[in-house]
Amino acid sequence: MNRDQLARAIADASLLRGNFTLRSGRTSSYYLDKYLFSTRPEVLRELADLFAERIAGIERRTGRSITRLAGAELGGIPLVTAASLKTGLPCLFVRNAKKDYGTAKQLEGKLEKGDGVVLLEDVATTAGQALEAVNVLKDLGANVLGVIATIDRQEGAAENMKAAGVPFEALFTKADLGISE
Amino acid sequence: MNRDQLARAIADASLLRGNFTLRSGRTSSYYLDKYLFSTRPEVLRELADLFAERIAGIERRTGRSITRLAGAELGGIPLVTAASLKTGLPCLFVRNAKKDYGTAKQLEGKLEKGDGVVLLEDVATTAGQALEAVNVLKDLGANVLGVIATIDRQEGAAENMKAAGVPFEALFTKADLGISE
Repeated sequence: MNRDQLARAIADASLLRGNFTLRSGRTSSYYLDKYLFSTRPEVLRELADLFAERIAGIERRTGRSITRLAGAELGGIPLVTAASLKTGLPCLFVRNAKKDYGTAKQLEGKLEKGDGVVLLEDVATTAGQALEAVNVLKDLGANVLGVIATIDRQEGAAENMKAAGVPFEALFTKADLGISE
Repeated sequence: MNRDQLARAIADASLLRGNFTLRSGRTSSYYLDKYLFSTRPEVLRELADLFAERIAGIERRTGRSITRLAGAELGGIPLVTAASLKTGLPCLFVRNAKKDYGTAKQLEGKLEKGDGVVLLEDVATTAGQALEAVNVLKDLGANVLGVIATIDRQEGAAENMKAAGVPFEALFTKADLGISE
């Protein structure tokens, strides 16, 4: 699959039309059900290849070694697992904040202080969840070198990441998937 | 890695000694932090190979096609993702029951009625979580052909699965990992 074919496969598998309320609170005429592509190995394998290329690019640009890949539950876990198998880099799973358990563990896997970490995200709207995950990683000593989203809905994620000082990129934008809204 | 080396790698990475209260409510002098092996690609890759062999074995024994692999959040997700990439079978992610959201979606991915499904589990103690996931899958029309645990702590999982009529096997037992307690 080339990049255009992969974009088409993702849109075909996961694009739903209707009225949706997103995690960010916004309403939208479309929804990308990330699980409809991340549960398909032929798509996930291609995404892992693209993540690996981007990860190498971040290392080149920053001159820093990436030593761990992270993903946030639940949608980020299949992505980071596939990218980990592709690159050989171990991974970290960031749990959602548990409102009822103040002291619950928010990170699974092994993080060493100063680890160079890239967070892989599924669909970024305002990137609120990704920023929460970045903060968990930073609080535990990670050097977060970037966030790579699978799809950027182009609704503020890049701007919010920039404001937070976190390098952000995406494999695909809404436009790449042929979504004009 | 051969099977013994893999068992050793899993024990080295994930075996913790102390006083632990397990999900089942039992207390134990040891705990297997599944994330300490499932976040390591060199271990996960080997586990995926073993799962693929077991899946082929279930197909041979039952004469039924396995069309989907399932894993329960959070621990089952990296396992089922790796096995899906290895076998080419699409996967399903079973969410934990949300006590506060009665109608929340409990299954991610695409299940067709009559799909032959095998559930991959991380560490089975009494297999309570696996049985919950099996019931979610069955309620939604899956034909659950078996459950394969990565590690069987040998504390009732096999018996409980048998009582529920679900074929159960494990890649490793507590004994395989050299744990005598």
